[in-house]
Amino acid sequence: MPGKVAIVTGIPGVGKTTVCREAKALAEEEGIKLEVLNFGDVMVEIMEKSGRPLHRDKLRKMDVGFQKVVQAQAAAKLAKAVEKAEGHVIIDTHMIVRTERGYLPGLPKHVLDVLKPDFLVLIETDPEEIAARRAKDLKAGERLRDVRLMEELKEELEFSRMVASACSVLTGAPVVIIKNPTGGQREAAKALLDLFRG
Amino acid sequence: MPGKVAIVTGIPGVGKTTVCREAKALAEEEGIKLEVLNFGDVMVEIMEKSGRPLHRDKLRKMDVGFQKVVQAQAAAKLAKAVEKAEGHVIIDTHMIVRTERGYLPGLPKHVLDVLKPDFLVLIETDPEEIAARRAKDLKAGERLRDVRLMEELKEELEFSRMVASACSVLTGAPVVIIKNPTGGQREAAKALLDLFRG
Amino acid sequence: MPGKVAIVTGIPGVGKTTVCREAKALAEEEGIKLEVLNFGDVMVEIMEKSGRPLHRDKLRKMDVGFQKVVQAQAAAKLAKAVEKAEGHVIIDTHMIVRTERGYLPGLPKHVLDVLKPDFLVLIETDPEEIAARRAKDLKAGERLRDVRLMEELKEELEFSRMVASACSVLTGAPVVIIKNPTGGQREAAKALLDLFRG
Repeated sequence: MPGKVAIVTGIPGVGKTTVCREAKALAEEEGIKLEVLNFGDVMVEIMEKSGRPLHRDKLRKMDVGFQKVVQAQAAAKLAKAVEKAEGHVIIDTHMIVRTERGYLPGLPKHVLDVLKPDFLVLIETDPEEIAARRAKDLKAGERLRDVRLMEELKEELEFSRMVASACSVLTGAPVVIIKNPTGGQREAAKALLDLFRG
Repeated sequence: MPGKVAIVTGIPGVGKTTVCREAKALAEEEGIKLEVLNFGDVMVEIMEKSGRPLHRDKLRKMDVGFQKVVQAQAAAKLAKAVEKAEGHVIIDTHMIVRTERGYLPGLPKHVLDVLKPDFLVLIETDPEEIAARRAKDLKAGERLRDVRLMEELKEELEFSRMVASACSVLTGAPVVIIKNPTGGQREAAKALLDLFRG
Repeated sequence: MPGKVAIVTGIPGVGKTTVCREAKALAEEEGIKLEVLNFGDVMVEIMEKSGRPLHRDKLRKMDVGFQKVVQAQAAAKLAKAVEKAEGHVIIDTHMIVRTERGYLPGLPKHVLDVLKPDFLVLIETDPEEIAARRAKDLKAGERLRDVRLMEELKEELEFSRMVASACSVLTGAPVVIIKNPTGGQREAAKALLDLFRG
């Protein structure tokens, strides 16, 4: 039986990448074959090879049309990596990307058609906790606009669910919500790994 | 003019099946040809014929991959029944199925492509009433975890709408919300039957 | 480089058409080529040519099946207009249309496939302001059912976002939310025009 593919998403600050890493560590302890691939890394790699290197933080400021092209190339590359993988695969990416020109879908139909996920995972954390985590990353002098930020985070979490619902209807894959409260990483990672069992 | 197809959905406890039965009775009183088909029944039937009988309650614990296969077979069977039907058809099913591995879409694209609905109906009831109805079905000793349950019900109702929205964009069929408060079955059934008029 | 296509939507009362007109005026001031096309106008035109003239307000009471046909014809006509356009194009339409038989999707898959939007814009205003604006349009004797109306408006705004999310996954185009509070038309129009820059 070939391995399963979980696309793991979450807005910045939910701790998505940490949960993926923790799930990978747990899998190794148990002897479960699991690979974690990062969509953004592949996009950056493609940009570098094309001779137009781009810092990761700039990805969300790219022209929409160009972003789509790189997105498609990255999806094709990841699909090949999935085919070669010997066990299960986690693809670490975004359901939506907040840009200056709206919410870009991280998994448009053409990407879903290529990646064929078995699970669509949303890592979620309460807006208050996300705000606190993001605050730690602020540079001196920066300040969070509290009320507005909270509204924005709620909107982003809400849109992520809406977009995930559409992805689910297109692929038939279930939407799995995994909560990642502070201190709950290990439990979140377990829940993620559980998807691949039996 | 051929009959129309309404896919009628609702989360457990909204009284979906009762509203469908009531609509069928009203249709008979008025001489309107209306058939009610149940998606879950057809899935159970397929399992029985395949020599792997499965209790209905276990449907939501099936392996996701296997569930998809049975879902596709059931959709094909229902499509044939719709073709043969002489009047209108209601397909009683779920927009989403809450499983241990997330929210499974009851009407993924491949099912919608086959069933070609004219209406996507969501039967809804307030979370408080759903909780009260479900409480009646509890065995002695079981207890509802109140606050968490209410959150879960709100989430399920919300996801149902999101998934219905995606189904609507794919099919072009409208999303129809029919409220079914306690004591309002007859009115809900009338609203459902009204969809097939003129 | 060919122009871009923004589909601009909003529920009645958000001031969608005013914002589009204002964006067009701003574009002219700056020498940016921008055409605004209205989906409903094209539908009415098609009805007239077919010898079945229909008042605009009656569009939402048409038979669902028939509406789909006219919708497809209008989309094809608009796609041709977009091809001929020398600059950017705004298509002024609805994400959802509230009818007696549910929420019709204004941009079902077959319409999106033809229009190929670069941006999916939702013009939004707070429900309270929408209610106030709609109140001005009431005839003597009519009265708004306040609480219920507010719930309905929230539901419509919510459904618009859900349907937009599905459209986004299908097309890869971002969902852009532009707020249009009273007195904020010019700023909203600027935000809309900004989508077409660089």
